[in-house]
Amino acid sequence: MLGSIANSLVELGEDNTTTMVPLVNNVGTTCLTITEPEVGKEAVEARDASIEDVLVKYVEHLKERTQHHLGYPYNLDFDYGSVIAKLSGFSINNLGDPFIESNYGVHSRQFEVAVLDWFAHLWEINKQDYWGYVTSCGTEGNLHGILVGREVFPDGILYASKETHYSVFKAARMYRMECVKVETLVSGEISWEDLQAKLLINRNKPAIVNVNIGTTVKGAVDDLDKVIQILERNGFKDRFYIHCDSALFGLMMPFFNQAPKITFKKPIGSVSVSGHKFIGCPMPCGVVITRSIYEKKLSDFNQVEYLASVDSTIMGSRNGLAPVLLWHGLNRKGYKGLRKAAQKCLRNAIYLKERLRESGISALLNPLSSTVVFERPIDPAFVQQWQLACEGNIAHVVVMPNITIAKIDGFMEELLEMRETWFRGGKIVKPCVAADIGRENCLCEQHKI
Amino acid sequence: MLGSIANSLVELGEDNTTTMVPLVNNVGTTCLTITEPEVGKEAVEARDASIEDVLVKYVEHLKERTQHHLGYPYNLDFDYGSVIAKLSGFSINNLGDPFIESNYGVHSRQFEVAVLDWFAHLWEINKQDYWGYVTSCGTEGNLHGILVGREVFPDGILYASKETHYSVFKAARMYRMECVKVETLVSGEISWEDLQAKLLINRNKPAIVNVNIGTTVKGAVDDLDKVIQILERNGFKDRFYIHCDSALFGLMMPFFNQAPKITFKKPIGSVSVSGHKFIGCPMPCGVVITRSIYEKKLSDFNQVEYLASVDSTIMGSRNGLAPVLLWHGLNRKGYKGLRKAAQKCLRNAIYLKERLRESGISALLNPLSSTVVFERPIDPAFVQQWQLACEGNIAHVVVMPNITIAKIDGFMEELLEMRETWFRGGKIVKPCVAADIGRENCLCEQHKI
Repeated sequence: MLGSIANSLVELGEDNTTTMVPLVNNVGTTCLTITEPEVGKEAVEARDASIEDVLVKYVEHLKERTQHHLGYPYNLDFDYGSVIAKLSGFSINNLGDPFIESNYGVHSRQFEVAVLDWFAHLWEINKQDYWGYVTSCGTEGNLHGILVGREVFPDGILYASKETHYSVFKAARMYRMECVKVETLVSGEISWEDLQAKLLINRNKPAIVNVNIGTTVKGAVDDLDKVIQILERNGFKDRFYIHCDSALFGLMMPFFNQAPKITFKKPIGSVSVSGHKFIGCPMPCGVVITRSIYEKKLSDFNQVEYLASVDSTIMGSRNGLAPVLLWHGLNRKGYKGLRKAAQKCLRNAIYLKERLRESGISALLNPLSSTVVFERPIDPAFVQQWQLACEGNIAHVVVMPNITIAKIDGFMEELLEMRETWFRGGKIVKPCVAADIGRENCLCEQHKI
Repeated sequence: MLGSIANSLVELGEDNTTTMVPLVNNVGTTCLTITEPEVGKEAVEARDASIEDVLVKYVEHLKERTQHHLGYPYNLDFDYGSVIAKLSGFSINNLGDPFIESNYGVHSRQFEVAVLDWFAHLWEINKQDYWGYVTSCGTEGNLHGILVGREVFPDGILYASKETHYSVFKAARMYRMECVKVETLVSGEISWEDLQAKLLINRNKPAIVNVNIGTTVKGAVDDLDKVIQILERNGFKDRFYIHCDSALFGLMMPFFNQAPKITFKKPIGSVSVSGHKFIGCPMPCGVVITRSIYEKKLSDFNQVEYLASVDSTIMGSRNGLAPVLLWHGLNRKGYKGLRKAAQKCLRNAIYLKERLRESGISALLNPLSSTVVFERPIDPAFVQQWQLACEGNIAHVVVMPNITIAKIDGFMEELLEMRETWFRGGKIVKPCVAADIGRENCLCEQHKI
């Protein structure tokens, strides 16, 4: 498909050929070209027709890829078409602080603050006590939260479990922070024992702890209450800062009664969540909320007269369309709609896990999670076809609102059919994944009951 | 207008009132609300009608604000409506490295690499020698370039003129880098003398220098060749890294023959440019290009199996729509179209400067720049009406392709009319701005010839 997109651009090419870009690892990926437009009405029409042709084929390609997507935590089912059509002609930019109107008038702060207020209410912090903004992605939320932590405790050590999202370790490196990796349980949850042991070695320095509300690969939830307890019992009272990375589950967990609660009534410093994951959005975005007392530490240094605002965000210019879409999505769905969607995801995740197990495929589904982890299909083409995220021996499907029973059935059918062919109709060799997802979930010859 | 938007949401409010958010400085700004949707067909219809009403009014507001915008370097004249309409239903995300296809299939890498190739060609670096990506804004490009510089020279000192964009100083703070502010000339250009003096004090450490290709406020261009000469003559040969912040002018300068050339044939490390400025784009974006030998230093640490790509970018999830729009814009405009637009901006900037001067208003227009700096209008309402960017005694207009002669005339007419009223028909007091824009440009009583 990508090949055909490029080929359709042949007429645009300076030398009538497509361009093969020497990619570092993906030498085969074909990219498009940008060529100098020729002069004259006919040439312009031909060029516009070529561009149109590329886009039409690209849309077909996107449709197919969207249809076959299972692996990443993005809800691909949304419809903002009419909103976007209204706004696509404007350059909406919320540069600077969301609460301080800049001189640039084409912004959407009134929508952004509405979205922030909604999250502040969800996480139980008063309007006057919080600060936050709509970010360009989950990573920006983590970068911001951890930066606040570092500014509060400049010599603090960052603690994060080894199954933490890679952006947290990137933050440590960017910010030149000492960083300690903490072991995890088989579920993917942080090991309290190891956290405690590592805190005790570094008693002399404050602790900045990243708590995962849903790890990237296994969807495991670190127990926030237990982490706080360990910190307070081990001499870190008033000497710790907690950032909750709730990228995916931040919008699902509040709707499960039995889930540990994320709330600013507990001594946490910041929470981040993605906007394009559970809610769904045509562009990556997110939200970070922190306490206004902390934020003041950062913003005091960053008054920018040129903006007539404060440079308190990681990015400068900020996409103003995303807050309008989030405002639209949250207004239409409400808590009730989100609860319903979250519960459906959980039910469908259980359905997928059971279908895998009854087909003899090892699988793990953590409680309160819609991330189904299972043995990695051995055929890379199949992994790519269904866009599965993989790590070592395991792959996962994140059941989002757009992953229906019908889609799961289609996936299972193809998986089982293909699996036969991978072993050429002979005996299917089931790999041992006990170390990855626990003995009790492993169906290999040695562990199956 | 904002008030009326909020008022139109009254029916949505839990308590039938609009919400006034306690803003740090902008207590008066009214924001919208998100409320729990009621159940029932009629309630849903009423809510959808309210949302529609808010959006229709918001669009009117954006139109008016777009019409009256002069101060920030954004080209508000673009039309990607048909492209966006086709793509707004997809969650296009280029997470990870542009050159290494991730397992997530709904991406636009084939467009992104085409855009990068175009810029690599513009800045004269071979395909195999460069690395880069489409960023979420100009700041991200600066953050990336300076991070590469720091990784190349971990103990390097960052040098940046005091009129450098605030994101560069933010980078220094985030990255815990020693940072030396260099004095500027009245034009806004970096002072070579001061740069040399400060380099000599810190001879023992490598230099990471931010070179401005168009400063934020005065649109001044630092002389890249002179900076390189100073570094090499003062014992920094092979011990320096240069990042060029070309946020705005990166796409205009190449089209002026007499301009100093930005090229990787010179010993520079990275260049960043904004996509939403001169080209125009409904969402902030940009491009950063660096040498692949440097990038390898960063990416070796950041292989992420989960992505099947490399976490070599500052942000994780990356807006995949922006590269398609840039590809579309560049393909349609081409070098010829951009040259024509850049020359028009320069002509219109000269026209504005002359109109100001002949009206007795002090003004500065640097060579090769379309940023017209002039005495700050004393009425904050006027500044806000025209969305002028201000600093101290001066304001500026950045003449972008959407700033036509007619718009300039309208602005001048209103400025002159209002200026009379500010002095109640009496003698107009012309402030001295010699310190800001030079004696020769100042028309105050003392300096006018």
